[in-house]
Amino acid sequence: MINKLIEKIQKTQAPIVVGLDPMMKYVPSHIQKAAFAQFGETLEGAAEAIWQYNKGIVDAIYDLVPAVKPQIAMYEQFGIPGLVAFKKTVDYCKEKGLVVIGDIKRGDIGSTSEAYAVGHLGKVAVGANAFYGFDEDFVTVNPYLGSDGVKPFVKVCKEEKKGIFVLVKTSNPSSGEFQDRLVDGKPLYEIVGEKVAEWGADCMGDGYSYVGAVVGATYPEQGKLLRKVMPKAFILVPGYGAQGGKGADLVHFFNEDGLGAIINSSRGIIAAFQQEKYAKYGEEAYADASRAAVLDMKEDIASALAAR
Amino acid sequence: MINKLIEKIQKTQAPIVVGLDPMMKYVPSHIQKAAFAQFGETLEGAAEAIWQYNKGIVDAIYDLVPAVKPQIAMYEQFGIPGLVAFKKTVDYCKEKGLVVIGDIKRGDIGSTSEAYAVGHLGKVAVGANAFYGFDEDFVTVNPYLGSDGVKPFVKVCKEEKKGIFVLVKTSNPSSGEFQDRLVDGKPLYEIVGEKVAEWGADCMGDGYSYVGAVVGATYPEQGKLLRKVMPKAFILVPGYGAQGGKGADLVHFFNEDGLGAIINSSRGIIAAFQQEKYAKYGEEAYADASRAAVLDMKEDIASALAAR
Repeated sequence: MINKLIEKIQKTQAPIVVGLDPMMKYVPSHIQKAAFAQFGETLEGAAEAIWQYNKGIVDAIYDLVPAVKPQIAMYEQFGIPGLVAFKKTVDYCKEKGLVVIGDIKRGDIGSTSEAYAVGHLGKVAVGANAFYGFDEDFVTVNPYLGSDGVKPFVKVCKEEKKGIFVLVKTSNPSSGEFQDRLVDGKPLYEIVGEKVAEWGADCMGDGYSYVGAVVGATYPEQGKLLRKVMPKAFILVPGYGAQGGKGADLVHFFNEDGLGAIINSSRGIIAAFQQEKYAKYGEEAYADASRAAVLDMKEDIASALAAR
Repeated sequence: MINKLIEKIQKTQAPIVVGLDPMMKYVPSHIQKAAFAQFGETLEGAAEAIWQYNKGIVDAIYDLVPAVKPQIAMYEQFGIPGLVAFKKTVDYCKEKGLVVIGDIKRGDIGSTSEAYAVGHLGKVAVGANAFYGFDEDFVTVNPYLGSDGVKPFVKVCKEEKKGIFVLVKTSNPSSGEFQDRLVDGKPLYEIVGEKVAEWGADCMGDGYSYVGAVVGATYPEQGKLLRKVMPKAFILVPGYGAQGGKGADLVHFFNEDGLGAIINSSRGIIAAFQQEKYAKYGEEAYADASRAAVLDMKEDIASALAAR
């Protein structure tokens, strides 16, 4: 799957992933109205609204980008109907040829981590049969529990030729509270980064490992360091746009081959129509605004990479 | 909810939580057969089997213990049907008067953590209405992302009078890989423990905070230290029984008031009929074996506390 991701990045010339993190306040009113008319103001109505909203965006951008990253929390908040919308979104994006990164940030121990891995990346056995539960291509994984928590994911990745991105240095303001603490003179995130390189070493695609890392766009200096600590890890970079990251901050997340990183934007793309810059599209044409925002982001990153 | 948990611990005289972590290999064959006869060897069939299995155990133990802890990964592996079984289990346990600790180990940032908090503990707004998605009483939370990841849960806990248990020192063999690393001479888990005390300070029930901690039974020395670092935090202690923890190891997790900790056992109780000790019950009477295992565990912990 890491090979497929890279192939699609090269084909689209866009190291970009669109975060499908629908919040009701982003969903245009005509979509909300139609969904509530059918299902009422219920969890099912909300789930229908976010699914239709997603579908519009995916239809408008699927030819421009290699991948999408649905954030499962935004679906899980609507209970079972929300998770049904998550599954529909995953399936639809795969139908459209997109690589799907499930932003699930799971992590537990032993057989429990294996259950998450099986449910999201692999197949679960039921009697003589086996079924994919959610069937994303990649998922994000929390490393706080150590190797016991991560290795079951790596095992399933090998079997299924799928991949993970391990949280190393997250994009939020308080990420330093624990991640930046110095251990033997090194910040914890560097130690986690070293482990990512170790976990990924026997799990290689053609040029990059199935085991990648998450490093926030908001921490470019740390990205520069971590790029060297994990030379074979693809870095998923959240925090572009709405969280403050710019193209110029991101060049050091890439290797000299122009690969090695994929930049996520969520709100900046899916709710582009709510920004002054794209207001001319209006609410009805929200998906066209998203397409324009993807093209602008692609240009911003390409210019930054060309200028380095 | 922390007051209700304490009240129930005092009433049952059992600081015990039963981990409802169903794996198909624990589910007696008569239950599997009946479920597969109705739904086939499908995800729906598996979900029905684990739900019926859980129901048998809950009916057999609900009067003995204050709380249950369903591990969502074991349900999530069966996709949407599995999560429907999770929700049925949560609802049924609450009907039976049990406090439900959702072992979800979620953790993200800002609005995303808020979405998890809302989905599992609180209500989500849909138009003019608001709905509970999963509606557990407590959930477990991963602290790797720092305060940004935890505070949205604390906010919902205050609104709903519910609670969280933050992972501090987990029970698995490799938990030390990051959690034990020394920062300014202190292990990281101690620093996380100090934060738990801080997050919980303005969020107090009568004697204990709504913000608790997870500390593994397999690390009694660390438990002793963390008990002092977080005097007002209830400690959820996994790792008893199958993972190797014994009653005698656990006394230092409790405060002198005999409170402050709740010990989890999962496999040791729900799959008791598969142990030699309880084999006489046989597979059909698996729930009676679970009841016997709860009574033995209660005795083990009570003796250990009496002897300290």
